[in-house]
Amino acid sequence: MPQPLRLGIAGLGTVGIGTVKIIQRHAGLIAARTGREIAISAVSARSRTKNRDADLSAYGWEDDPVALATRKDVDVFVELMGGSGGPALAATKAAIAAGKDVVTANKAMLAHHGQSLAAAAEEKGHVIRFEAAVAGGIPVVKALTEGLAGNAISRVMGVMNGTCNYILTRMESAGLPYAEVFEEARQLGYLEADPNLDVGGIDAGHKLSLLAAIAFGTRVAFDAVELEGIGRISIDDIRRAGDMGYRIKLLGVAQMTGRGLEQRMSPCLVPADSPLGQLQGGTNMVVLEGDSVGQIVLRGPGAGEGPTASAVMADVIEIARGCRISTFGQPAATLADPVAAKATAPAPYYLRMELSDKPGALAKVATVLGEEGISIDRMRQYGHADTSAPVLIVTHKATRDAIDHALKRLPATGVLVDEAVAIRIETV
Amino acid sequence: MPQPLRLGIAGLGTVGIGTVKIIQRHAGLIAARTGREIAISAVSARSRTKNRDADLSAYGWEDDPVALATRKDVDVFVELMGGSGGPALAATKAAIAAGKDVVTANKAMLAHHGQSLAAAAEEKGHVIRFEAAVAGGIPVVKALTEGLAGNAISRVMGVMNGTCNYILTRMESAGLPYAEVFEEARQLGYLEADPNLDVGGIDAGHKLSLLAAIAFGTRVAFDAVELEGIGRISIDDIRRAGDMGYRIKLLGVAQMTGRGLEQRMSPCLVPADSPLGQLQGGTNMVVLEGDSVGQIVLRGPGAGEGPTASAVMADVIEIARGCRISTFGQPAATLADPVAAKATAPAPYYLRMELSDKPGALAKVATVLGEEGISIDRMRQYGHADTSAPVLIVTHKATRDAIDHALKRLPATGVLVDEAVAIRIETV
Repeated sequence: MPQPLRLGIAGLGTVGIGTVKIIQRHAGLIAARTGREIAISAVSARSRTKNRDADLSAYGWEDDPVALATRKDVDVFVELMGGSGGPALAATKAAIAAGKDVVTANKAMLAHHGQSLAAAAEEKGHVIRFEAAVAGGIPVVKALTEGLAGNAISRVMGVMNGTCNYILTRMESAGLPYAEVFEEARQLGYLEADPNLDVGGIDAGHKLSLLAAIAFGTRVAFDAVELEGIGRISIDDIRRAGDMGYRIKLLGVAQMTGRGLEQRMSPCLVPADSPLGQLQGGTNMVVLEGDSVGQIVLRGPGAGEGPTASAVMADVIEIARGCRISTFGQPAATLADPVAAKATAPAPYYLRMELSDKPGALAKVATVLGEEGISIDRMRQYGHADTSAPVLIVTHKATRDAIDHALKRLPATGVLVDEAVAIRIETV
Repeated sequence: MPQPLRLGIAGLGTVGIGTVKIIQRHAGLIAARTGREIAISAVSARSRTKNRDADLSAYGWEDDPVALATRKDVDVFVELMGGSGGPALAATKAAIAAGKDVVTANKAMLAHHGQSLAAAAEEKGHVIRFEAAVAGGIPVVKALTEGLAGNAISRVMGVMNGTCNYILTRMESAGLPYAEVFEEARQLGYLEADPNLDVGGIDAGHKLSLLAAIAFGTRVAFDAVELEGIGRISIDDIRRAGDMGYRIKLLGVAQMTGRGLEQRMSPCLVPADSPLGQLQGGTNMVVLEGDSVGQIVLRGPGAGEGPTASAVMADVIEIARGCRISTFGQPAATLADPVAAKATAPAPYYLRMELSDKPGALAKVATVLGEEGISIDRMRQYGHADTSAPVLIVTHKATRDAIDHALKRLPATGVLVDEAVAIRIETV
């Protein structure tokens, strides 16, 4: 049997300890599968004395992750600290400079620095793997980079932030408003220290930008992701969308259009009976579409100790087996500069508005929509005892620009009681 | 750039031509992704003159696949002929003996000869890859062998024969009996030349046995798969199961139990609202369960030119990238001899019977069940104008042995109008 593959693991939070546990529990199984032992040389974390759910006494300790990353007895630097810059970035750079392979779960770091990190690693003949950075335990980086490598990819979609999906499904099932469920999620520890990373769509946007780079052979372009969080989704929207046969999801979509690379992470309506529509709670789902394969749907736990550590180990085992695949599926130096699409592709939209109970109110709205080239597919006005009535409209395909124009013009009609809401309906 | 990877493709049916088309259409894309050109040196098929939907004029031709497999200018023998023995097996053996890598879509050949072929290839340092043999375009072999390689796998489940799923869902949606839909499927060309490969569960059983070998590190044991086809599923069963909230699927299940490796391919009831229950038409789904990752669900097209060729290309690209993974995820020589479980794990069962309209009929049935240790979870008797009444029973967990005993004893009660039907309910 060849020499063991020696790891240095930086970060001993949930995922780090989960990884240590798998290596301890399944040493024999993994050696049988890889033909090589996986050994931990040393670990690093902020606190050495913190009580952790694993015996670390056999491993070296480094207070400084940079020191860990450059140890002579480390072949693979496993970065599980998180954070887009700071110690994670410094240690990853040091590891690459020292000629180590890198396995990381850090989507923020890769979304911001993946291009330069990958180029630096590849220049030295080393690899960065990041299965755990996207959709937790779902082996989606592998599916896209390897399983679908013979396809021109047309679209990548996904629900990739379990916390947002938990909030949206909980709002629906319990009939609770956003603020209340947000608070619940916070107390359950589901939210990042900066909750906007979750509910603002940033975390999921990071993941989408990484998949887009692989799918379309383009440089990581997180800054070009159109981000919209879930904070403005009301329980009313969830109910009304449900009445029309839809569910609301924080959905990421990346597709190459004639106008460039479109990347969106935003609340969308999807058919309630579609696989995406039926996704409950913290589960993630990624949809991959290729010219030969058609549509592949992958579903699984998007976070948590076991699933994320499982993904880390997939990368470690890949390296131990001698597979050396470019970070984004082709050499970073060959990735094309993506042209960010100026506008998103036309789609049907769901519009919700509260109209004052005056004769001709609906006609005024319909006139504005018509003048903006937006045609109505379905319309529903609810009975009301009040002086205003909720009206739902599902449009035929329209551009976001047209919708935005219409939304701007609607208040001038004087029939809106409240701000109108527009949510894209995604064809899935 | 290194030398091109040179293929010899044997079999120019749907999948073979699909593979040629991808290589022609995406030469640049694939070279960018693999860092290496994929070239076709020569092809082979039964008829050279047949009109095919691809230009083959640039490739050498061999009438004999064995000659193709051993050509000096072939690095990878791509076996797309099919058939468990015959020319496919002869050519694959010849390719291995000549020191070639092998990519195949041939589940029948691997289910019967995979163990010896893998051992022979690995002795020579060569690989056999077979992503296209299981679940068409879904990269499930990769997900299991690589993506979940850090997990002890507890269960693999799947709907892996699109034709059977088409028949079952079509029976339900059109309200047609089995024989009629079977005939439809035959006329649509959905059935193998020997339809029992499909409807008898053999084809899906082949696939299950291959996944089980990877999942549990055991030698391929197709002969130990308990096979039951869909020929006895009636439209009544589909309707009644639906009334109880279930759908009937030809479901494969492989799991390691205290009594050995259990492998079943048989009609099962699954909850109608589960991912498996909602699978319509020819789509395939595979569920993988691991100790760390939990449950991963993969869904996609299970057959067809594009999807299957996509899977073939995933293997070709994997080899071109220099990844060399053992056929079943660990060296064939190290695969354990599986002990076939003597009985399947207990499960709830669905029982349907037609009882004659006599006082005490139901009591007699219940007595037999009770004496066999089978307890009733739910029971439903339908109204009837006739001299007999349909009765549905959902049991608590029971062994298949107990169910079979009860079924044998029931006729002696004299209250059964027809043979009772028992179908396992799978927890998904």
